[in-house]
Formats: sequence, C-alpha cells, structure tokens
Amino acid sequence: MAKPRVGFIGVGTMGSRMSRCLLRAGFSLTVHDRNARKAAELKEAGAQIAVSPREVAAASDVVISMLPDTPDVEQVVRGADGLREGLRRGMTYVDMSTISPTASKALAAELHGLGIEMLDAPVTGQPVNAADGTLGIMVGGKREVFERCREIFQAMGKRIIHVGPNGAGHTMKLINNLIGATVLQVICEGLALAVKAGLDPQQVSEVTSAGGAKTGMMESRGPTIFARSFENVGFALRLMDKDLRLVAELARDLQVPLPIASVAREMYRSAMTAGYGNLDVAALVKVVEAMAHVEIRSKA
Amino acid sequence: MAKPRVGFIGVGTMGSRMSRCLLRAGFSLTVHDRNARKAAELKEAGAQIAVSPREVAAASDVVISMLPDTPDVEQVVRGADGLREGLRRGMTYVDMSTISPTASKALAAELHGLGIEMLDAPVTGQPVNAADGTLGIMVGGKREVFERCREIFQAMGKRIIHVGPNGAGHTMKLINNLIGATVLQVICEGLALAVKAGLDPQQVSEVTSAGGAKTGMMESRGPTIFARSFENVGFALRLMDKDLRLVAELARDLQVPLPIASVAREMYRSAMTAGYGNLDVAALVKVVEAMAHVEIRSKA
Repeated sequence: MAKPRVGFIGVGTMGSRMSRCLLRAGFSLTVHDRNARKAAELKEAGAQIAVSPREVAAASDVVISMLPDTPDVEQVVRGADGLREGLRRGMTYVDMSTISPTASKALAAELHGLGIEMLDAPVTGQPVNAADGTLGIMVGGKREVFERCREIFQAMGKRIIHVGPNGAGHTMKLINNLIGATVLQVICEGLALAVKAGLDPQQVSEVTSAGGAKTGMMESRGPTIFARSFENVGFALRLMDKDLRLVAELARDLQVPLPIASVAREMYRSAMTAGYGNLDVAALVKVVEAMAHVEIRSKA
Repeated sequence: MAKPRVGFIGVGTMGSRMSRCLLRAGFSLTVHDRNARKAAELKEAGAQIAVSPREVAAASDVVISMLPDTPDVEQVVRGADGLREGLRRGMTYVDMSTISPTASKALAAELHGLGIEMLDAPVTGQPVNAADGTLGIMVGGKREVFERCREIFQAMGKRIIHVGPNGAGHTMKLINNLIGATVLQVICEGLALAVKAGLDPQQVSEVTSAGGAKTGMMESRGPTIFARSFENVGFALRLMDKDLRLVAELARDLQVPLPIASVAREMYRSAMTAGYGNLDVAALVKVVEAMAHVEIRSKA
C-alpha cells in the first residue's frame, strides 16, 4: 500500500521536529505555518510549502495540525482558506495540539458530517522526543481510523495508545498535564522548605529519586531550577497555564473538585501575572521562592 | 577490625526485616521490642533478646532504633530502663525512625553531653526494600560518625547519603514524604477526573509513566487503587499523616508557606477522620472519590 501523502500545519518548536520525522520516514509532506519563515525552513529538508491550510488539504491524504490553543485550531479548520475548504470526503484530519476536548468533539462532529474523519492525538514529551521520534501519543477517535494512521504516528512516537472516542486524547493529555503541573508545584514547595532548613536541593533530588517520592518533574526540572536556566524553554509556562484552564473547565463540567490542582493553578496564574509566561514551566519556582523569601540554588 | 555488636530496638514491619539483614551480614545482634512476641520471632534467626532498651545498650557497641513516632523514641532513650541508662561513653546511637528533627537534635545534644554520638538515619523504601537490604538511608550527624557506621548501613541500604548535621536526616525524610504524600493526592485528583471523563485509569497510569507526569506514587499506588487492595499495607496512612504533621511544624518554624502541601495535609486529616489510618496510604483516594462521587476502578 502506498504511503498516504501527509500535510502538516503548525511547524513551531514541536511541529517542525515532528515534520522532519515524517520526512525521514519517507512520507511526502506539505507544510504550512502562519509564520512563512518557519515553513520555509522545512523546504530544504524536502517538504512542499503551502500558503494556506486549504492548500495543504488539497495536496494531502491525511492532514495533521500542531497548534498552541483551541482558537488556533478552530481558525485553521473554519477560517478563510481553512481546512474545511480543502478537505475531501474520505480524508482524515489529525489534531495533535492540546486543546479543549469539548471544542475538539464539536469539530469532529462537524467534519464527520462532511465525510471527513478526525482524530485528536496530543503528545507527551520534550522537543528532544519530537526530534528523535519518541513522543508519547494518546489518540481519541474511531479505532479503525486510528489503525489506518498508525504508520504515521509510529514515525513520530514510541508509546502510541488509543484511549477512547473523539476528545478522549485531549482529555487524557489534560489529565497528564494536571498531574505534571501540580507535581511541579509540590517539588517547588519541598525544595523551598529544604533550602530554608539548610539542606542541599541537589541532595533532595538524589534522595527522592530513590523511592515513592520519585517524579519525572524533579528529573526534568530539578536541573533547570538549580542552574536557573529558565530561558532554556522545554515547555513554556504559558502553555501549562492554558492547559490548567482547560482542566478547570473540564473539572467544572464533570463536577470533580480538585482541592490541590486548583490551588496549583492559582500559582501558575501568579507566575503569568509576574510575566514568566515565555520562560520554561520551571519558572513556577520563582513564585514559591517569593512566597518563602528564599532562592533555591545547589550548594555544589 | 572486628564488626561492632549491634542492638536493635523496634522490630515491627520495617525493623524486623532490617534486623534480618544485619544478621545475614554477620553482625552480632541484640533486639528489643515492647511487644515481646515480635522480638522472639528474631531469636531463631540468631538474635539475642533483651528485655529493655537499657539491656540492649549493655550488650552492644552501636544501638539502632526504628519506632513509629517522636514520643516512642524519647521514651526509649529517656524512659525507665531506657537507653540513657545503658549507653556508655564512646558508643553510637542511630535513630532510623521518622521523627521531629527538633526533638532529635535535642536528644543528640543531650547524649553528646554524656559522651555518646547520635545519628538520625531515616529510610525510604517499602518493606520489600527493608527485606532485601535496598533501602535509601539519609543520615544526619557528624561525618566521621557516619563513616564509622557505614558498614552497618550498607547491610540495610543501597543509596546511603550523608545530608548534614544532627536532625538533617529527619528533615530530608520529611521533605521526601511531603513530596510523596502530596503527589499521591494529585494522582487521586487526576484519576477521579479521568474516570468521570470516561477514561480507563490504567491507561492514565500508562500514559503518565512515559514523560514529565511520571511519579513513583502512581507506580507503587496505582495498582493498589485499581485493585482496591488497601488492606495490603506497604505504608500505613496514619504514619504519613504523622509525617505531614511534622512537616507542618517544620514549615511553620522556618516560615515556609506550603500552598498545596498544606491542603493535601487536610485530605489526610479527612482520611484519618474517616477511619482509614491503618489502611495503606493509597486509601487517601477514598476521600477524593467521596468528594467527586466516583470510584476509580480499572476497566480491564
């Protein structure tokens, strides 16, 4: 069976790396970004460049988007020269952004009415995982559509898992980020207490890594905090803040109280107010440090 | 150099396993427990049995205690027929319980006045780690005293780390448990939201294990929650509740606000009120489930 022609909309930090994985895997690829310069960078890697989402759709069998937030995805689908104008009956649209599950379900229903299948397939992992094709991918939508797209996902990810109907992928991603975001706040509190008690935060990292207090957040953000390298952005704080807004909406709709995740969200809001949105998510620690009048630096 | 004779006070779930490790490593061991039956169980493994802490001290060069809470340790040291009556100048006392750093420092100062060195050396890990000698051990006290006891620690643990002066071991352990306890609450909130959204909690565990939302708590307590096996006690909820009380005292003394750890503590308090103290710490989930009117069970 011939490989499907793939379209990719949104080639930022993650999307550009994912696009290169698809090219390496031998997919014919057409890309678009509202920032034309970003799209152009992929030309020498072998991608065709399209001037609009509509044009991407016209040149592809499966179209992927990787965008910051819900309105961006809605604009790409419904806007002028959008996907809706280019997608044809029988095509598949895969949104790999992290957006509102409710909005995504509405888009899927709308496209289904036009004979177009949609999957939501957000990812976990850092830019380095996007680069080497080892992202986690959680997919919502019909299982048979998921199976048809498996080869595409395998070019970009390692842990690829079908989690339910349309919207389930985004829901899973939001729960993943609820946990990650709140765990980061816990770590900041623990480190602030440790430093004020005279302990070496690096030793806290070492000790906790051994047992039940082990966290991926300490592994990935401990070094960022100790080195104060918040400008080295793996995941922008503003994107986590956005995800926590989506979590809050979901929790309200489903009537699930979130005693500590909701307080953690307020800490991210405080970080946004302080202007840390474009720093790495680890900059959350600055809010905790300000509250406790302490700075978390390694003794080494 | 001849191996020091070791005394062990408190041979409960953890202490009995740690004692057996010391016997296996060839240490001559004298044990005591206020529950005489527990001490007797170690006789056939080769330990001598003593009727009091004083008698343990009389038969040993280094005395270890592994007890539930601060008052238990204070009673063992200062009570009638206590360690203070049996310890001799030049001996070392190693408290491996998790207790108040402040109380521990006071004990260390008191014993130091009698020519006896003290270490606080609490542990991380499950009963299985106590059984196979792979505990994490974080040690507070003089470095040269730590070095003298290294051989003893190596019989019980794998990651052995000197973290500072007297009290620093307990402080480190409390910070470890602050993180672990609060992370467990985050996980419960995430799972409650996931189940109400129609996702399989087992898949949440799978997805989060791949990236930044990875936690040791999901690894160790996810299975307990999914199987509802709260009677299988790895770490009793009441002990975590006790540790969070000690964390709150420390944070108050050091003036460190704990926005989410303090809310998590209230959840453990609620679990204690509900009578879950003797269940595994994973029973915290029942409080979250009651708040959200949902039960977290695997779909499989």
